[in-house]
Amino acid sequence: MMFDKISIDDTYCISKIIKEEDIIRFAEITGDFNPLHLDPEYAKKTRFGERIAHGFLTASLISAIIGKSYPGSIYLNQTLKFVKPVRIGDTVTAVIKVLRKDEKRRFLELETTCINQNKENVIEGRALIKVSR
Amino acid sequence: MMFDKISIDDTYCISKIIKEEDIIRFAEITGDFNPLHLDPEYAKKTRFGERIAHGFLTASLISAIIGKSYPGSIYLNQTLKFVKPVRIGDTVTAVIKVLRKDEKRRFLELETTCINQNKENVIEGRALIKVSR
Repeated sequence: MMFDKISIDDTYCISKIIKEEDIIRFAEITGDFNPLHLDPEYAKKTRFGERIAHGFLTASLISAIIGKSYPGSIYLNQTLKFVKPVRIGDTVTAVIKVLRKDEKRRFLELETTCINQNKENVIEGRALIKVSR
Repeated sequence: MMFDKISIDDTYCISKIIKEEDIIRFAEITGDFNPLHLDPEYAKKTRFGERIAHGFLTASLISAIIGKSYPGSIYLNQTLKFVKPVRIGDTVTAVIKVLRKDEKRRFLELETTCINQNKENVIEGRALIKVSR
């Protein structure tokens, strides 16, 4: 994807069902064993009533769709607001939309949103990336 | 950890060596197959000269140390500035430090930094979490 072919409002998305095994593997790689994500008994007593996915597991779908849409791009900044929990079995769609282009530095500012199967935002934020060419 | 035992400037950290297999497994879970992370030939031609870790793989160490230090806490916000690349074999230390306590809502604002073995910041940012009790 050449930089001058990119337009404001270009939108890409990717979806994934969040499975129990994703949460377990994510915990193993990252060392994040927060009982809210891994311990059903503990999670039952929280306001969520059950285990929820790591916020970063969901958020990494944003990175995935950026990597797929702009191969070789470099991540500069990301803001993440975790607005709703993601539960096992939820289908999350990460959506990126081009808000701004900096032609000189080949930077893109993106709106980055993760949405669940009920069309509710679960993560909101913005990213700044540098596109490879 | 009871909320009233938490003090401003409390600091916790966790370290991890980023291995090639971590990057491969992270790509498999998240679907982020950006060639910058996975393709040695591609990566050789970039400004980095070799594969680098997914920013979110490194950043998830922040989530890990938050989960370990404040079990059951809920992530509300995170900002991430990716300031330097992380290469295979690098030792990354995620450090969190309490900047501010909101007693009423049991919120903590944290400074969140990832540092490499050369004491260079690789990620800078802040987090807002709600502590469980």
